[in-house]
Amino acid sequence: MSETYAGKALDFLKKFNLQEGDTIELTKNGLILKGIIMPSYSSSDDILVIKLDNGYNIGISVDSISEVKLIKRGEKREEKKTEEKAVKDKSEVIIISTGGTIVSKIEYDTGAVRPALTTEEILKFMPEINEIAKIDAKVLFSILSENMKPEYWIKIANEVKNALDKGAKGVVVAHGTDTMAYTASALAFSLKSLTGPVVMVGSQRSSDRPSSDAPINLLTSVLVAKDAPFAEVTVNMHGESSDTYTLVHRGVKVRKMHTSRRDAFQSVNDIPLAKVYYRERKIEILRDDYIRKKDANEVDAKFDPNVFLLKYYPGLSPDIIDYLMNKGVKGIIVEGTGLGHTSSEFYNAFKKATKDGIFVGMTSQCLFGRVNMNVYTTGRLLQEAGVVPLEDMLPETALVKLMWVLAHETDLDKVKELMLTNFVGEINPIHVPEMYPRWYHDRIRLQ
Amino acid sequence: MSETYAGKALDFLKKFNLQEGDTIELTKNGLILKGIIMPSYSSSDDILVIKLDNGYNIGISVDSISEVKLIKRGEKREEKKTEEKAVKDKSEVIIISTGGTIVSKIEYDTGAVRPALTTEEILKFMPEINEIAKIDAKVLFSILSENMKPEYWIKIANEVKNALDKGAKGVVVAHGTDTMAYTASALAFSLKSLTGPVVMVGSQRSSDRPSSDAPINLLTSVLVAKDAPFAEVTVNMHGESSDTYTLVHRGVKVRKMHTSRRDAFQSVNDIPLAKVYYRERKIEILRDDYIRKKDANEVDAKFDPNVFLLKYYPGLSPDIIDYLMNKGVKGIIVEGTGLGHTSSEFYNAFKKATKDGIFVGMTSQCLFGRVNMNVYTTGRLLQEAGVVPLEDMLPETALVKLMWVLAHETDLDKVKELMLTNFVGEINPIHVPEMYPRWYHDRIRLQ
Repeated sequence: MSETYAGKALDFLKKFNLQEGDTIELTKNGLILKGIIMPSYSSSDDILVIKLDNGYNIGISVDSISEVKLIKRGEKREEKKTEEKAVKDKSEVIIISTGGTIVSKIEYDTGAVRPALTTEEILKFMPEINEIAKIDAKVLFSILSENMKPEYWIKIANEVKNALDKGAKGVVVAHGTDTMAYTASALAFSLKSLTGPVVMVGSQRSSDRPSSDAPINLLTSVLVAKDAPFAEVTVNMHGESSDTYTLVHRGVKVRKMHTSRRDAFQSVNDIPLAKVYYRERKIEILRDDYIRKKDANEVDAKFDPNVFLLKYYPGLSPDIIDYLMNKGVKGIIVEGTGLGHTSSEFYNAFKKATKDGIFVGMTSQCLFGRVNMNVYTTGRLLQEAGVVPLEDMLPETALVKLMWVLAHETDLDKVKELMLTNFVGEINPIHVPEMYPRWYHDRIRLQ
Repeated sequence: MSETYAGKALDFLKKFNLQEGDTIELTKNGLILKGIIMPSYSSSDDILVIKLDNGYNIGISVDSISEVKLIKRGEKREEKKTEEKAVKDKSEVIIISTGGTIVSKIEYDTGAVRPALTTEEILKFMPEINEIAKIDAKVLFSILSENMKPEYWIKIANEVKNALDKGAKGVVVAHGTDTMAYTASALAFSLKSLTGPVVMVGSQRSSDRPSSDAPINLLTSVLVAKDAPFAEVTVNMHGESSDTYTLVHRGVKVRKMHTSRRDAFQSVNDIPLAKVYYRERKIEILRDDYIRKKDANEVDAKFDPNVFLLKYYPGLSPDIIDYLMNKGVKGIIVEGTGLGHTSSEFYNAFKKATKDGIFVGMTSQCLFGRVNMNVYTTGRLLQEAGVVPLEDMLPETALVKLMWVLAHETDLDKVKELMLTNFVGEINPIHVPEMYPRWYHDRIRLQ
């Protein structure tokens, strides 16, 4: 009857002759809710999990249900399993799971969230995915993304290549949102040639929470992996706070810009590649300068993590550069102020470092806009000291790029040349005013 | 006739019997331009500087002028000087100049911009300011803001207090934009009690460039300093890319979010205090929970710069904490990922540091949103190691606050208590959806 329910909830199912997959209509505090009975992931044994029509999963205590009615009997579990098996033999999209909230659940004992579910378990939550593509799922890691490391990026890159080599139209990489943008950059520089889209996806709220963005993000990602015309590394996440569409961002131009909102990811200094309408299952391409599909997949994943990201602030002492030099760091990305500045006290330290063969690149802590070290005297002096202005690259992207470049080249002039080469759209030569996100102060009323 | 023109431009003025302050209409390449002749700040002797009706100053080569007509004779310079003198005796607003683009000009020899003009020279560009308030100007420093230091913050804070103590209704602090938000935080924590508004202002384009935002930013700042009902440290800059209004941001909740746009400054996790319409000379108050005017001014400006701002990224080694401890750093602000994380490899390093009495506070590199270290296991572990989640404080604000707190308290428990005390609105308990700036992807057409 049910493999995942126990206690009170199981008694409830037995009493009304219901099982997972059945569509039911129930009354709770006068409210009528219609949905499909989902597998339980709650450790409280009185909670019934229902998937509503809007894609949300909600947990309801069976004690609060005053009436229940069977609307439609679900398919038998046995039939489903056969179907799932068949799917694997001709998978169009391969989902590589690395961990994170999209595959996590709450530890009810401590109240904390931990990665736990396999991608297959997630798919039970989202049977609609089978209507979109024949998928296969693989758990590569099960780590929180704050513990992601450059050595894992290499494994993911190779796994993506394998998946595409096997004939998948596209690959979805499930990843924690904390460092997803870093990994997206790492994959983008590593995967030099691709036969299909690579779609990184995460969720800001875990999949067993009612307002989880996991199902919609995952479903649209599978759609993009299968049907999108581009062959580059992207991030697909909610495009606004409700559930109408997601945005597909270029992996090297995206940033997590909010700690908790579902639409936390924003393209910075760039236009997203596409907008995906969840209900309509429709991909709207927003630009046509995307990277085209190639005949073969090529991976070149090497990273030298011997770098440092230095954010400048008033009062920072140049001593830090000596420390980094002593530690044998090969490259420094500075998050300078404004157009790309630090105090002029850094002039000598940077000069010494670059003379020693250490690459020093300048980005801006403003994040939006382009550095320009020709406008002010300070910028000119820093350039004289060997600091290289890195156009409109995000500091995080520049850092990952530097790790990748340094694993291939050590000659400072060549490193500089590669850092300024636009490999996968990490440098955007043209900015339009609409790229700068605006604050809706007009909509806020006096309190 | 003219004190500031020479060469060709002076010959032109002599020929047509014109002088600074005259309103003229001229024809250039078939285009008719009307404006007031301004003092020259160009080192090219053929350039005539005209202030157009929209507030812009433009430089025109006299060689390109085919016709010129006197519309209205300007006031005599002598009369003006007397008026300026009178103003000083009963100044309502005091402008303290510290340097930056708002008081800078282009070095035509090198093409770079350097701070050069005194505030009085700026006022020649913006005679309308005299219609708004009786002002006095003082040059405190003339430094580029990337060279700003904690020790200068103290001088500015004291100067602001002096100005208000003398009876000024409000104070304008002209400052470079690069580190303006850091100084705003420093002044906000230092000025514990104020009799009037403190308005920090800068410009993204230097005052002798046609599209300079200096005049409008300065004029509206004087208006706010004189008339606004609040008595807190604010930043007043362009609110959108054209010249309709500026936004007055709370100093502890504002950030430079673009390298070059005139509307680069945004309130983060907060609503601006006011919107100021340039043409209408109107202040629209957007909220009423601002800090009220007090009877006396109190300054408490002390900073311990012995802190470090550490931005986390995948691959960062915890060794940096050992270095900081050896260096005798007393506090560390971490810019963690997402809700406030680093890799769990930092657990031991943070534990050691906090046991040693070093304050470790967590903010988010997302910038928008609030840290929450109770959701994931990593956050809970980091808290166990003594890391303090700093709510929705900006990393930069938290850093400046820590410098201020450490100059007053060394006991770790007290430092923690003060860091979590909401002194001047640096912690915002309530976020509304409109506080998150949105990207106008809907407005972008296919390329």
